[in-house]
Amino acid sequence: MTAGPGAGSSFEKLSKKYLGAVEARLSRAIPADDSSLSRAMRAALLSPGKRARALVAIACGLLFRGPEEALLDVAAAVEAVHAASLALDDLPSMDDATLRRGEPALHVRFGQATAILAAVALVNRAFEILAGSRSIPAGARGRLVAELARAVGEAGCCGGQQADLESDPAGAALEDLESIHARKTGALFVAAARGGAIAGRASEEEIEAVTRYAKNLGLAFQIVDDLLEEEGDSSSTGKKAHGEGHRANFARILGAATARAIAGELTEAAARCVAQLGRRAAPLTDLAYKLAQRRS
Amino acid sequence: MTAGPGAGSSFEKLSKKYLGAVEARLSRAIPADDSSLSRAMRAALLSPGKRARALVAIACGLLFRGPEEALLDVAAAVEAVHAASLALDDLPSMDDATLRRGEPALHVRFGQATAILAAVALVNRAFEILAGSRSIPAGARGRLVAELARAVGEAGCCGGQQADLESDPAGAALEDLESIHARKTGALFVAAARGGAIAGRASEEEIEAVTRYAKNLGLAFQIVDDLLEEEGDSSSTGKKAHGEGHRANFARILGAATARAIAGELTEAAARCVAQLGRRAAPLTDLAYKLAQRRS
Repeated sequence: MTAGPGAGSSFEKLSKKYLGAVEARLSRAIPADDSSLSRAMRAALLSPGKRARALVAIACGLLFRGPEEALLDVAAAVEAVHAASLALDDLPSMDDATLRRGEPALHVRFGQATAILAAVALVNRAFEILAGSRSIPAGARGRLVAELARAVGEAGCCGGQQADLESDPAGAALEDLESIHARKTGALFVAAARGGAIAGRASEEEIEAVTRYAKNLGLAFQIVDDLLEEEGDSSSTGKKAHGEGHRANFARILGAATARAIAGELTEAAARCVAQLGRRAAPLTDLAYKLAQRRS
Repeated sequence: MTAGPGAGSSFEKLSKKYLGAVEARLSRAIPADDSSLSRAMRAALLSPGKRARALVAIACGLLFRGPEEALLDVAAAVEAVHAASLALDDLPSMDDATLRRGEPALHVRFGQATAILAAVALVNRAFEILAGSRSIPAGARGRLVAELARAVGEAGCCGGQQADLESDPAGAALEDLESIHARKTGALFVAAARGGAIAGRASEEEIEAVTRYAKNLGLAFQIVDDLLEEEGDSSSTGKKAHGEGHRANFARILGAATARAIAGELTEAAARCVAQLGRRAAPLTDLAYKLAQRRS
């Protein structure tokens, strides 16, 4: 996969400028106390992560000069539901994973009951953040909540995970796989991108452009994830699951070379979707290529 | 426990008038399709229930002449998170219950993974309903979402359930028990009452009155639940749990007679909280006495 135009610099700048603020906002989202629920929520949310969804939200919001505090609230909400979804995916009844981000999975550290409650509490905290944000225009808060709730629920992560659990890992058709991951992974990237744009008061046409960007980006992201899972070992991916054999995997179904080629095409398609938005879209283009080239 | 003033008639009228509409609104909240996630969500939400929280929301909203459609949306959202909390409480890692509302628990019917995903999807559907309601004034939607999210999360149901799981069933102090159930049961009754009042554009003083009502009602409700659990068998309560021995129970700690007396006092206190609101509050008073006298 070749690097896109201007890859590197503008995204690195964005990332350098905002990653610290994202981590601070996430830490502030779950005040530290000594209850096991609070500790589990913090462990799930603050363990080291790429913060890809947060950066998508911020980059999309900055395109339209959205206020930084509002974008950080959207970013925190999206990362909170993402952290919740990882904790749930890792449960023994789901992927039965023992390692996540290089550390013991949440249920290994805190027990299943606490891991489940922490995940549900994180989802609720996400909605508290959005609905209670003073930086987001009042009229936009309801829309942000409705869109994020849809992205997490039956039409999004939950529905995608259920379909993934029911899928035939050997015999799944490519279109089934796309449908699963459009919900399981794509919906949250789309919510992040739209959330940033909505908080930035973008026009409907502009929101549509970042939506198409995020759909392509999300699918490319999942294919690269699947490639890394197939190629890699847990020391680079930081993941270890007993149950992953049941999951439909693009790399396994398409073969690594084809999967890699499709991820490249989707990344280029993502870049084209935001090209119309001009030079300010450079961080989004760079971000797409960075995520496609990642090794973990 | 003696019946309160005017018990029966005004609540029965309210219940007769609105229960059908509540059930219809709940059914509309989860369109039937043949996916297992959708079937599990419908099974959790539409199994026969008292709809006590829905009726609290509606009765509180009608006090201030809130529009019926708005109150039904609030009622549906509250019942959706309540159904989710029951599905989670019953999981093997929590109360390990096999029977709920006289039917096999959700995880028994659909498996643990689907039960967990259905619960999370129901919580998200609740926020979709509130944030997307056209009947609720736009300015109130954000507040309703923020308050419900708080009631479900760390400060509410999730935190209360975690504290309950960690409690010492034999040695818990009364104040611990009150703190657990203020979050586990009370928070959602309070959210229902406040939600109805907010959707009905009540004043802050009026919202505070129904809040105090709901706090007393919620605690009385839990004590009666505990009494029924201690006295009853699963054929009347419709519940059967292997793990309930670990749960702190008012009747067990206080003794049945004291617990019954306290439930009576709390019910009378609830009635006093809304007495200032005049004759229109009669359904709320009746509802409190009905719930205190229930046998299942």
